[in-house]
Amino acid sequence: MVKSKVYIFEKQFDGFPKEDDLKLIEEELRPLNEEEFLTEAVYHSIDPYMRSFAPRLNVGTVFIGTQIAKIVESNNPKFPVGRYVLGDFGWRTHTISNGKPIGSSRFPYLLPDFGELPLSYGLGVFGMPGCTAYFGFLEICKPKAGNTVIVTGAAGAVGSIVGQIAKIKGCTVIGVVGSDEKGKWIVDELGYDHYINYKMADLKQALPEVAPKGIDCYFDNVGGEISTTILYHMKPFGRIAVCGCISGYNEKEPKASPVQPPVVSRQLRMEGFSIHRWTDRWSEAISQNRKWTEQGKIKYRETVTNGFENMFSTFVNMLQGGNTGKTIVKA
Amino acid sequence: MVKSKVYIFEKQFDGFPKEDDLKLIEEELRPLNEEEFLTEAVYHSIDPYMRSFAPRLNVGTVFIGTQIAKIVESNNPKFPVGRYVLGDFGWRTHTISNGKPIGSSRFPYLLPDFGELPLSYGLGVFGMPGCTAYFGFLEICKPKAGNTVIVTGAAGAVGSIVGQIAKIKGCTVIGVVGSDEKGKWIVDELGYDHYINYKMADLKQALPEVAPKGIDCYFDNVGGEISTTILYHMKPFGRIAVCGCISGYNEKEPKASPVQPPVVSRQLRMEGFSIHRWTDRWSEAISQNRKWTEQGKIKYRETVTNGFENMFSTFVNMLQGGNTGKTIVKA
Repeated sequence: MVKSKVYIFEKQFDGFPKEDDLKLIEEELRPLNEEEFLTEAVYHSIDPYMRSFAPRLNVGTVFIGTQIAKIVESNNPKFPVGRYVLGDFGWRTHTISNGKPIGSSRFPYLLPDFGELPLSYGLGVFGMPGCTAYFGFLEICKPKAGNTVIVTGAAGAVGSIVGQIAKIKGCTVIGVVGSDEKGKWIVDELGYDHYINYKMADLKQALPEVAPKGIDCYFDNVGGEISTTILYHMKPFGRIAVCGCISGYNEKEPKASPVQPPVVSRQLRMEGFSIHRWTDRWSEAISQNRKWTEQGKIKYRETVTNGFENMFSTFVNMLQGGNTGKTIVKA
Repeated sequence: MVKSKVYIFEKQFDGFPKEDDLKLIEEELRPLNEEEFLTEAVYHSIDPYMRSFAPRLNVGTVFIGTQIAKIVESNNPKFPVGRYVLGDFGWRTHTISNGKPIGSSRFPYLLPDFGELPLSYGLGVFGMPGCTAYFGFLEICKPKAGNTVIVTGAAGAVGSIVGQIAKIKGCTVIGVVGSDEKGKWIVDELGYDHYINYKMADLKQALPEVAPKGIDCYFDNVGGEISTTILYHMKPFGRIAVCGCISGYNEKEPKASPVQPPVVSRQLRMEGFSIHRWTDRWSEAISQNRKWTEQGKIKYRETVTNGFENMFSTFVNMLQGGNTGKTIVKA
């Protein structure tokens, strides 16, 4: 009899997630039916969307998340024992799946061989964050060579890739981050042209210095007051891809200066997106990101925590900006 | 010697405009040079943009505005005595012009003959507000027959035309207004399907009742909290044309719930615009609006105040929502 450890979404988050909002239990799994297979988690992805999506989750269900898992038993010839799958199984160590995707999801799917690159990249640059950076930036910001691009959450899983794609496309790139350590990493290692540590610098003063002609494209991961300030520094007809708004996820009644005044005065176009929009082009992004990574044009970093029992603390730490690059828990 | 009454922008507005922020003076005009002509104002346009543009105006200059004026003296054969021009001459009774537009402006231009329709329509449905409604709605909201459309400031100079164009295009149309009187006018006279009086109704409750399937297109004149609430009731891939944000014009530090959460979760596209974007297509909008008006498909109302000395009080009254349709001061 296989047992799975499972985090149950016990209570709707009220402000910042608290430890007892989730409950770690053990669940006995039934034997496999036909077409089913059993997996054991290897890497868990920890992402900001888990917080923003939570209000739409039912209390009492498994908390959401994707993972890379090894197939340990199988009645499904398409998912043979020993291979690895990427699945949206939630926060659990063992899972029974029939291999069929739910809704517009692409999951679960068998991971290809990444050659000399780690399997865990399938959760990041060769997975959802990589596709989010690729499509969100290219399709919505529509950058042109010579454009000035700004990225908030610039050292995060998505932002760190956006900035490097912007450099590949010939743009001047500014990253907004929450520490000088992150700032130095994105400039020295990733090739960003400038960084602004929003905790130390006055954004209103710093922006004209690093972008004297204004900003063409803004890839927004944070929302809130930082975003409004950036909008006031954009050029006419600037494009904003709104990927997330982590600054307000844990506030009960977030407020900010309205975005409409700069949106009107600069004729800006702001568009929100979900990666599911490009599900049918997923492999295009993965293969391009893989090529760039193998060529050394995209550098990729993970912050890895060991132990399933550390899922919650890792999640909270990521929401507080404690990660650099992609956040992962190794089971 | 001709004298002109002129309103000088004495002090930058701080919150709501105060009477002594503008100063009414008399100015002696010099004789005309070659190519110049002299006009006498007949109708002054009073528009919300005057408030939002003010921070970019230099103190000590004539306050901005467009007017319909009669040519009373002329050294320019293209602008003969007796004809009427539409000019962005500002708040003044008499003006010397050489007929050349400044920047991307189309002004001054000779007004055509509107047949049985009043000359003053050139400041509204056959002028800037009409073009704003036509291009902003059609080009940015991209409505399709059967769509549900919402308009804020729905009884204003622009909003009242947007709603009627939406009806012509086969949409279900909801207007948000600040009084039941305005609401009844837009439903009974203009053909809006529903109105919501935001001062009396709880928008969060009213929206699902009038738009049970959600909203496809939002033409936004007000910004602020009303707009954020509407965004949460939009369908996926909804389009928002941001024309203005009058709700915040007179607040020193306007705050509202951020728009980014609904923009992301619904993948909305929000775009601000200025009518100057379509300067080269201006006549297309005017001739279409004229056709619709002559066919009775667009109904048009003006709130007219007499007397140049009432410019300021009319301006403030309009900012407070005291007008229905287009606000005009008759000289």
